Amino acid sequence: MPNEFDFIAWIRAQSPATAAVPIPPGDDLAVLKWDPADLLLVGIDQVLDGVHFDSQLHSPRDIGLKAMNRNLSDCAAMACLPAAAVVSVALPKGSGVDYPRELYKGLRTAADPFDCAIVGGDTASWSGKLAMSVTILGRSAGIAPVTRSGARPGDTLYVTGPLGGSLLGRHMRFSPRVTLARELASRARITAMIDLSDGLARDLGHICKESGVGAIVDADRVPIHDDARTLAGRDKIGPLTHALGDGEDYELLLTSPEDLSRCGGIPIGTITADQKIQLRTTTRLAPLTVRGWEHSL
Amino acid sequence: MPNEFDFIAWIRAQSPATAAVPIPPGDDLAVLKWDPADLLLVGIDQVLDGVHFDSQLHSPRDIGLKAMNRNLSDCAAMACLPAAAVVSVALPKGSGVDYPRELYKGLRTAADPFDCAIVGGDTASWSGKLAMSVTILGRSAGIAPVTRSGARPGDTLYVTGPLGGSLLGRHMRFSPRVTLARELASRARITAMIDLSDGLARDLGHICKESGVGAIVDADRVPIHDDARTLAGRDKIGPLTHALGDGEDYELLLTSPEDLSRCGGIPIGTITADQKIQLRTTTRLAPLTVRGWEHSL
Repeated sequence: MPNEFDFIAWIRAQSPATAAVPIPPGDDLAVLKWDPADLLLVGIDQVLDGVHFDSQLHSPRDIGLKAMNRNLSDCAAMACLPAAAVVSVALPKGSGVDYPRELYKGLRTAADPFDCAIVGGDTASWSGKLAMSVTILGRSAGIAPVTRSGARPGDTLYVTGPLGGSLLGRHMRFSPRVTLARELASRARITAMIDLSDGLARDLGHICKESGVGAIVDADRVPIHDDARTLAGRDKIGPLTHALGDGEDYELLLTSPEDLSRCGGIPIGTITADQKIQLRTTTRLAPLTVRGWEHSL
Repeated sequence: MPNEFDFIAWIRAQSPATAAVPIPPGDDLAVLKWDPADLLLVGIDQVLDGVHFDSQLHSPRDIGLKAMNRNLSDCAAMACLPAAAVVSVALPKGSGVDYPRELYKGLRTAADPFDCAIVGGDTASWSGKLAMSVTILGRSAGIAPVTRSGARPGDTLYVTGPLGGSLLGRHMRFSPRVTLARELASRARITAMIDLSDGLARDLGHICKESGVGAIVDADRVPIHDDARTLAGRDKIGPLTHALGDGEDYELLLTSPEDLSRCGGIPIGTITADQKIQLRTTTRLAPLTVRGWEHSL
């Protein structure tokens, strides 16, 4: 029966030593040379069967892709460059050796375009369901990290693409906005940024809470994805409600005192001094209800 | 019902910003200042219910403790200092809020003595079993990382403590040998090192394979833990067999051309040029059989 050491041997064949990673996967820890000019950013994000994907429905390649892309999207949210990643996988017993290889190929498909090396991992089999954790290391590379806490009254609120209905499939195959985030942050003063994973209403709540501000979102300026309309046609929940609440869009939500409309920012509202989060329609101004994802414990 | 944001708020209260971690947990990624003199070491290691612990038997405090200590033990194996960690937790639905707090306290109990900050995390609930992944960042801090690949014929083989029978409870509550590893590596030339997680026979196999060498272990020099004797009294497998094969001792196995017996090394054998791994008893020299832990996939 294939075992974890066969899989580790295969992984190592994909991961030669480089100048930046003088000791690659295979020892107790990998060793990286870190550019002294760079701040080190780090975070961990997991994907779980039945929560973030459905192993009956989604291919291991797509599951690996999503696991890595969620972390790359966190790099985008901080305007840093992905530098390296480590991955743990809890495999259902009897998965065989092709399945984890496909997971790995999905991870690499996401990471390779950013020269983000996978420098370590841990594979184990258990009687439980598939769980993967990816830890991402990012480097500031000349751009100060953008947090959630710098939004100021008068700033314009932007998103980077159409929202809603990602559950139709987009949530598994999205493009993390790393390059766009770097471009925006190098050209303009971005005061706060987050990636849209929990849904616009909730993620805007995070920015407002951290920044001590409020916001007004203009309903007719929120870009609505075709998927949101498709879903709305089925479930009779309005397309705007999907766009505001669904989550897993992995577009960026950001604030700036500058005009970003020519470099990829779609203006959808304004940051306010009072701490209310409101939705403005042609007829009224009302609280923006949170209808996003949360894990009850 | 308590949710992940309540838990995150609690975690953040435990994790203020410092000079070394100017942006603490709570944003998309944490930000660390990295000492330019330090190599960065990184690895990930998970603990799974039914594999590395039993949630019916072990307290969440001990589960968190083990999850972190396994990673600290990897730092010991490379002779680096633990610098920071990030943690993901997949919680069974209905765990409540006290359970993950206890997990976190266990993590901190292990990490705090090393000033190893927990700088990020991801908590989610699911219909699966408890799974935790810890990523450790280590810094070389003046000592070149010790790999598995430098053992040379004629080197003496050492362990740092008695082995076997850890399943009686020691596997949940062990002391990672970080300080001892640093002392050994600063005083002597350590040519290869690994922590004993898979069992002496198998972990010695890792060193020999990576170094392209063999080894002779002297049966009567292997320090046997009382737990191995206790277990042997029950299952009629000899105490030495337990010491050689059980695993999860989390002592260090290392090689050196120098005499380490006065600074914590217990000599148990010799590295050889031929690539056999053998056990020498008073009556014979025979292949050392691998009887350690492995995950079949």
